[in-house]
Amino acid sequence: VDSLNRLAERGRTDRAELDALLDEVPFGTLATVDEGMPWVVPLLFARDGDRLLLHGSTGAGALRRVADGAPVAFSVTAFDGLVVAHSTFDSSANYRSAVLRGRCARLRGDDQQAALDLLSDRLLPGRTREVRRPLPKEWAATVALALPIEEGSWLLKVRTGGPTDPEEGPDRQHGVWRGVVPARVAYGPPRPAADSVDRPLPASVRAVLDR
Amino acid sequence: VDSLNRLAERGRTDRAELDALLDEVPFGTLATVDEGMPWVVPLLFARDGDRLLLHGSTGAGALRRVADGAPVAFSVTAFDGLVVAHSTFDSSANYRSAVLRGRCARLRGDDQQAALDLLSDRLLPGRTREVRRPLPKEWAATVALALPIEEGSWLLKVRTGGPTDPEEGPDRQHGVWRGVVPARVAYGPPRPAADSVDRPLPASVRAVLDR
Repeated sequence: VDSLNRLAERGRTDRAELDALLDEVPFGTLATVDEGMPWVVPLLFARDGDRLLLHGSTGAGALRRVADGAPVAFSVTAFDGLVVAHSTFDSSANYRSAVLRGRCARLRGDDQQAALDLLSDRLLPGRTREVRRPLPKEWAATVALALPIEEGSWLLKVRTGGPTDPEEGPDRQHGVWRGVVPARVAYGPPRPAADSVDRPLPASVRAVLDR
Repeated sequence: VDSLNRLAERGRTDRAELDALLDEVPFGTLATVDEGMPWVVPLLFARDGDRLLLHGSTGAGALRRVADGAPVAFSVTAFDGLVVAHSTFDSSANYRSAVLRGRCARLRGDDQQAALDLLSDRLLPGRTREVRRPLPKEWAATVALALPIEEGSWLLKVRTGGPTDPEEGPDRQHGVWRGVVPARVAYGPPRPAADSVDRPLPASVRAVLDR
C-alpha cells in the first residue's frame, strides 16, 4: 500500500496491461468535438491487434464526422471497487482507465465484414458460427470504424490495492474498519426468448457465463 | 419485444428514470474540448437534486478549464446485458445511457464541504459519520464542481428486453438459442486492511453490499 493516493493512482506504460483492459470491458465512451462542443456516446467495441473496432448505425449524426476522420478520444473504464479509508479524503475507487486518442478510419467491403464478425465474436465468442451470415442490407445499415492503437496515442491509469495507511497521529488511533469492497461485472443467469426455452444454451453464451 | 432494434433503443424523457440511473452508477465520463481537441476523464459523481456533483484533484490539467466553465458533456452508462438474437445484426446490448450537457460551477467554502460530504455518503452511505471531518489541507487539495440538470440539457437512451423477433422467412426456422444474458455490477466480499481484520464491518460498507 502506498503512503499517498497520488502514488497508488499511477499511469502505466505496459501495452499488455492496456490490452487486458480493452479485452475485458465490452463498451467505452467515444468523445469528439461537434461544432466546437464536446459530444459523447457509449459504444460497444473490440480490440483487433493494434486497433479498436467500433460500430454504429449509419443514421447517427456526429458519428458521421467521426467516420470522416474527426479527432476522437475513446475512454474505457473498469470499476474494480470502493476503497474505504480512515478518512473520506483518502477514500477512493479502484479502477483501470484507458483513454485512446486518434482518428478513426471507416472500414468497407471485406474489411467491414471482418470487423463486424470480430465485434460479434468478441461479445459472444463464436456467435458468428452459430447463426446465418449478415444480409447485404444489414451490412449497409452499419458503420464499422477502426481507431489505431499507437505508441503515444494512449494513456492507462490504474488504482489498485487497499486504502492508504493513516499517517502518524490521531488517525492511527481510529478504530473504524477500512479496506476494499471489490466490484465486478457479473453475468447471468440467461433468460431465453419464448421460442428458446427448450433449446440448448449455445457455446457462445456459455463462454460469456464462464468469464 | 419490438420488431426493430431501432424501436427498442429509444430515447426517454422521464426525469425519474434519469435520476434512477444517476443514483445507481457511481462513475461517469467527463468530456470537454481542450485546444480544439476532445478530452475525457472518468470521474466518480453523485446527484444532488437538480445537479451532479463531481470532484477531482486541484492538480489535474484540463479539469481546471472545466472548473472555469468550459462546456462539458458527461456520460453515464449502465451495461445491463447482452442481447443474443437470431442474427449478429440484431444482437445488441441492453443498457441505460445518459448524456448531460452544460457548464460546471466550482463550489467553495461551505458549498464545497457539503458537496464532498454528499459525494462520500453517496459512495459509502453514512461514511462521513463514521470517520473524522476532513482537514483544511484536504479541502484545499480537492476541486468540487456542480453540473446543473436542466430541461433540455440531458438525453437518456435505454435498450431493454429480449432480442427482436425474426421476421417471416428462413430466420423463423432457425433453431438457435436466443435471449438475454443479464449483466450487473456485483460488490463484495469486503477485504479488510491489516488493522481491520477484527473490526466490525461498518454500516456504510454493509449498505454497499445490500445494493
